[in-house]
Amino acid sequence: MRPFGARRDRLRALLGAAGVDALLVTALVDVRYLTGFTGSNAALLVAADGEARSRFCTDGRYVTQSAEEVPDLETVVDRGSVLALARRAPGLGITRLGFESDVVTVDGLTAVDAASEGVELVRAPGLTPGLRAVKDDVEIAALRTACAVADAALADLVAAGGIAAGRTEREVALDLENRMRGHGASGPAFETIMAAGAHSAIPHHSPTDAPLRRGDLVKIDFGAIVDGYHSDTTRTFVLGPAAGWQRDLHDLVARAQRAGCAALAPGAAVAAVDAAARDVVVAAGQGERFVHGLGHGVGLEIHEAPWLSSGGAGELAAGMVVTVEPGVYLEGRGGVRIEDTLAVLDGGTEPLTLAPHELVEV
Amino acid sequence: MRPFGARRDRLRALLGAAGVDALLVTALVDVRYLTGFTGSNAALLVAADGEARSRFCTDGRYVTQSAEEVPDLETVVDRGSVLALARRAPGLGITRLGFESDVVTVDGLTAVDAASEGVELVRAPGLTPGLRAVKDDVEIAALRTACAVADAALADLVAAGGIAAGRTEREVALDLENRMRGHGASGPAFETIMAAGAHSAIPHHSPTDAPLRRGDLVKIDFGAIVDGYHSDTTRTFVLGPAAGWQRDLHDLVARAQRAGCAALAPGAAVAAVDAAARDVVVAAGQGERFVHGLGHGVGLEIHEAPWLSSGGAGELAAGMVVTVEPGVYLEGRGGVRIEDTLAVLDGGTEPLTLAPHELVEV
Repeated sequence: MRPFGARRDRLRALLGAAGVDALLVTALVDVRYLTGFTGSNAALLVAADGEARSRFCTDGRYVTQSAEEVPDLETVVDRGSVLALARRAPGLGITRLGFESDVVTVDGLTAVDAASEGVELVRAPGLTPGLRAVKDDVEIAALRTACAVADAALADLVAAGGIAAGRTEREVALDLENRMRGHGASGPAFETIMAAGAHSAIPHHSPTDAPLRRGDLVKIDFGAIVDGYHSDTTRTFVLGPAAGWQRDLHDLVARAQRAGCAALAPGAAVAAVDAAARDVVVAAGQGERFVHGLGHGVGLEIHEAPWLSSGGAGELAAGMVVTVEPGVYLEGRGGVRIEDTLAVLDGGTEPLTLAPHELVEV
Repeated sequence: MRPFGARRDRLRALLGAAGVDALLVTALVDVRYLTGFTGSNAALLVAADGEARSRFCTDGRYVTQSAEEVPDLETVVDRGSVLALARRAPGLGITRLGFESDVVTVDGLTAVDAASEGVELVRAPGLTPGLRAVKDDVEIAALRTACAVADAALADLVAAGGIAAGRTEREVALDLENRMRGHGASGPAFETIMAAGAHSAIPHHSPTDAPLRRGDLVKIDFGAIVDGYHSDTTRTFVLGPAAGWQRDLHDLVARAQRAGCAALAPGAAVAAVDAAARDVVVAAGQGERFVHGLGHGVGLEIHEAPWLSSGGAGELAAGMVVTVEPGVYLEGRGGVRIEDTLAVLDGGTEPLTLAPHELVEV
């Protein structure tokens, strides 16, 4: 079942409240979500009254591909996809055209305005990303697969003794990425964070040629892409027997992570979910060393709505897929982060990443 | 020698003509070019009158990294980097603030306007990308290394018999990418195009699980990233003895590519360079099958100014690094593209990618 028509219908249902009779969709990831098109240049005009006045546009390189991927929309072939659709708006009888004011640049709006002569342009930010925050079954299935691929790759890496003293951060990161590809990922979901020793205290660390050393904490934050959907997992290992402070730090973060996961539910305020985990860290006197939000939505983008942070607004809903990833970072010594990707469902939370949570001494 | 201060000085020299006393730099790649910062969140305020009123901003995750990478600018730590700098503009005495109207979104401008109370905002698109089009010595050295890494990886792949019937496009693409990493690339410059048989007639083809077959043309478009700089090469091979039409097609594209490379020179119009190569293809009656521009600049981005196309404006300058990549695509049969990355210098053109150009039967 192609889900794209139903997604466009859900978008249409929002256009009346936005006060427009069509929306110009220019963010490529939103075009993909609404049409299934996977190429690198496209735009979409979604008319509020149905498919007949809606148009898809891509360029000459993608004629064959778009015919396969988007058979259900009238397609315009033009390199300047956004402006080509803007030019067609008057002829389609569109008088109030919504545009993604959080995506379209200032110069871009000037060009759209000139191209769509006589059409009133109306700010309409965030409509498709709002829909994307709640996943349909096709998406949850893809996310489940992406997470399973990542789990399998990490398990293989550990079983093969891949996290070993003497190997460099870059070697181990590449090893893990290749294992994900071997399990069916089209690529890594982001640049793998492979951070050993003091580097593990840097929340976002790019792998270096530094070798892993016995006694290091090794923080691994990684993900797989499958069918365009991303997974996101972090686990922290220790090379050899864990020192007391390493075990204590890991235990603290693991408790915070469990508390965060337990707080996930349809209707839960995102700030309350963040607080559930953060309170554990604060109570241990380490609140200032948990320097980032608790998590974020995951889907066609690695970071997308909803945002789980202390200052975040809004509530979770059934169908959202989010990360829960508290971390505590001791500068110069090491840090621990534990992260899962989970689906918030009516019947309860489904963890999609299933790698073991206990501190593993490798 | 850190080149970043000199780059900011070159930007300052443009601000008077732009009618502003400071520029808010928000494109991350431009921030990197002007400061050396390699993290994922930053903004920069460059005052026309020097470093004293200039500010760099990043968030708490990057305090340690930014102290190392950007020791020469006063740093503001704030998650909302763009708005944090906008808020400081009035206090720094800035009255006319330039913004990148080709980068800042419509909603982003509204927020900047609210944050920088009393400051007049002025469109100032493309200033830093214009500077980036002409590379300094540090950049040309990085590009030379990235191209050498790609050359070495392709040579290894060929020597190892990696382009072989029975292997899938995905396998060969991954093999090549891993060889680039083995030679020091931080990653591929873009998703490798590995297109065999009829797929080679698709200019931008994503690797599939289709196996390479004897008799196929195999088009490989790939690049390496080193220190943030990209290389870009295309070679087309044939699996087994070349058929006459394959050899003819390759000869035609090779002649066009040589003509394009020969036309590179400081002062040459970009449209004339495109024409030098395109005329060869047109004279052979295949003009309609050369469906894209001749090339593009390469640097911190894989595609950047200048743009070598038939409708392009402007001239080349010494220090520009560009691709020359004609292609002819016979739908359903196969296509050939040959591409090099070259530096346009006062003393003559320096090819940076040096892989053999003759048709190789593997």
